[in-house]
Amino acid sequence: MIAHILSTGDEVLLGDIVDTNAAFLCSQLKTLGIHVQKITVVGDDINAIAGSIGDIAQAADICLVTGGLGPTRDDLTALACARAARDHLQLNTSALESMKAYFDRRGFVYTRENEKQAMLPSGSCPLQNENGTAPGFYMDIDHCLFFFMPGVPFEMKMMFERQVKPILADKFKIDAQILIERFTVFGLSESKVGALLAGFDKQFSPMRLGFRANFPVIEVKIILTHFVEKRKQAESEMASARKWVSGQLGDKVVSDQGCSMVEVVGQLLTRQNLTLAIAESCTGGLISTMITDVAGSSEYFLFSGVTYSNAAKMAVLNVAEQTLVQYGAVHEKTAREMAVGARLKAGADFAISTTGIAGPGGGSLDKPVGMVCIGLAGPSFSTSKTCQFSFDDRDKNKKMFAMMALEQLRRHLVGLAKTS
Amino acid sequence: MIAHILSTGDEVLLGDIVDTNAAFLCSQLKTLGIHVQKITVVGDDINAIAGSIGDIAQAADICLVTGGLGPTRDDLTALACARAARDHLQLNTSALESMKAYFDRRGFVYTRENEKQAMLPSGSCPLQNENGTAPGFYMDIDHCLFFFMPGVPFEMKMMFERQVKPILADKFKIDAQILIERFTVFGLSESKVGALLAGFDKQFSPMRLGFRANFPVIEVKIILTHFVEKRKQAESEMASARKWVSGQLGDKVVSDQGCSMVEVVGQLLTRQNLTLAIAESCTGGLISTMITDVAGSSEYFLFSGVTYSNAAKMAVLNVAEQTLVQYGAVHEKTAREMAVGARLKAGADFAISTTGIAGPGGGSLDKPVGMVCIGLAGPSFSTSKTCQFSFDDRDKNKKMFAMMALEQLRRHLVGLAKTS
Repeated sequence: MIAHILSTGDEVLLGDIVDTNAAFLCSQLKTLGIHVQKITVVGDDINAIAGSIGDIAQAADICLVTGGLGPTRDDLTALACARAARDHLQLNTSALESMKAYFDRRGFVYTRENEKQAMLPSGSCPLQNENGTAPGFYMDIDHCLFFFMPGVPFEMKMMFERQVKPILADKFKIDAQILIERFTVFGLSESKVGALLAGFDKQFSPMRLGFRANFPVIEVKIILTHFVEKRKQAESEMASARKWVSGQLGDKVVSDQGCSMVEVVGQLLTRQNLTLAIAESCTGGLISTMITDVAGSSEYFLFSGVTYSNAAKMAVLNVAEQTLVQYGAVHEKTAREMAVGARLKAGADFAISTTGIAGPGGGSLDKPVGMVCIGLAGPSFSTSKTCQFSFDDRDKNKKMFAMMALEQLRRHLVGLAKTS
Repeated sequence: MIAHILSTGDEVLLGDIVDTNAAFLCSQLKTLGIHVQKITVVGDDINAIAGSIGDIAQAADICLVTGGLGPTRDDLTALACARAARDHLQLNTSALESMKAYFDRRGFVYTRENEKQAMLPSGSCPLQNENGTAPGFYMDIDHCLFFFMPGVPFEMKMMFERQVKPILADKFKIDAQILIERFTVFGLSESKVGALLAGFDKQFSPMRLGFRANFPVIEVKIILTHFVEKRKQAESEMASARKWVSGQLGDKVVSDQGCSMVEVVGQLLTRQNLTLAIAESCTGGLISTMITDVAGSSEYFLFSGVTYSNAAKMAVLNVAEQTLVQYGAVHEKTAREMAVGARLKAGADFAISTTGIAGPGGGSLDKPVGMVCIGLAGPSFSTSKTCQFSFDDRDKNKKMFAMMALEQLRRHLVGLAKTS
């Protein structure tokens, strides 16, 4: 089976955004055992879109199309599809109804502008958009099945998973299944992870490894495609592979379930009925944001003091003026006092802190950009350590600092869980 | 001039990586006034690569190709190029020499495996790779000029900027340029923005509008391609178009320079020499993170108290226990006290606050998911307001709450700048 992907949108061709939709769809199709042969990207140009649809119809069995379904004048995909299929647009009442229902649900005012979005090729079937106004649709053109989805990643993903995937599985009687196991690894470069797992292919073929650098974390996947009736055997092979990978990566594995660092920390806190406070300087609220992105984090997260100014470090976290004068804001002693202060202020069991130089400015010979002091305070102790990274990038530094602080906490909590 | 981009590599089609090379090349070509018409991605398959090269040679004047130049068996681009050009590979001594020099410089051991990389189509000219082993090359195929570059982003970028760009500028006597103006719009849906700007094409053709929803903000672009010698005229046409778009969108325009909300707020604070504190509950540190993502934010940002627990709201922000008992954590009175408390604690000129229900849990009939109270405190006043949104998504709610709080501040600061 030959699958193609067609992304549309001037913003991709102008280089304003990176086409992440195509990558998502490729990996999703992979889980169905469908390998994508070609991705095409064209702009918001009706001739280019219609031409590509025509070409793909001749070359492929399936095509997933994203973008150009919105209400504005540069949204031309439905019209291009109709042209390529020698069809015409007509108001699809089912698409219109579900669009109106979406507007009602949200309390939005429905305008005539929006009606354009329910104008679909007459030979197409609508796909409901649960998370936005633009309906999708699918249609057979010259024996190639085209699925048209919105370009907004969130809307597209939901539509693909809830509607397109079941149709594909059903229409193409997909009988191969994929087992995937995921590891979250922190503290190793991608090439180091690759080197540690170099013997995998020889030992575990036909299983494959997939790597993804999601800075500063490396995600490792073990992928095994198997036939439905061989599920048992596949699971046993996967268990051996899992064990080997875990052994090779050791304590750099944050999660062998594919959970993120903050999810793992949240689980460790919840299970031991512990609470957390944070004191952030250079990370500027990033640790708090990461922690509170996890639903239910209010169970364990009490407070974060984002203290950029020295005055706030003193007023909110009770850092001693003497410490700041003598050692400066970026120092292990300050980091420790910040953590202790946040913990006491919030009445939390644990607190972590960061103070450092994220750059691009603010560095010095003594305290260069990329230097961070991390504090950890608990019921009967406080510690701190200094790390130096060499990214030129403010964003990367903030992320790395945040992850290092969370990693200190994670390791402590893992130790605690083992001894209790 | 018609430009295409061809990316090669199984890892893209498997969804393991996102093709950032294409986005980089698109934006680079844009600066040369070359608009990319199509991006194609194929796997490490000689037929697919050769076929695409053949198709593109018929359709385009320029093509930039990335990937498949390495030493391993799945690096097939040079061979595919030779096949499409009805040419053959031969050892390119100049490419070999510079590759050997690279190995020497790095102290790497040169192997026969590497020699494969210097086997280039006989009709091609080599491009030196200063940052890796794989040489690139360029070649005319059926009057389309192909540039072949490595897939490693760092190597590709250097090769493009130092070698490909000068050749392009020289060969094509580039005389068309693009003018782009960007607006950041908040408080309108994409379809509403489209409706307000519906008359644009008629009035300002051949200028085009581009829209991009970057939740919860809509980015609007005016794009004008013009010849170098008509720069003056283009600038004057663009000025009229800008004025019209600004007028249509009114005070929903956060920036007519394409700046983000936090950049605009930062500029307004800096210019008036003001400082900011934040008190966050439901946004969990997101406002602080956004603010501190802007380099130099330490000039105006002093402190954020991320107070998830009521105890922290009282201890850190001096919210009255009576207020929390009588009205609860999510209430305008609480929001106001949070802002006032953060402002005083940090000694800041202004403070904003958020307290609400981001979901998915925690909602009630009285205080449903999506409800947020936003406080604003200044030198001689404090106010608050309640907003209700209807996203099902925690992440969207957090983003919208954060932007609404920043928008209150922005509007106040704009008013202040006007009266002072």
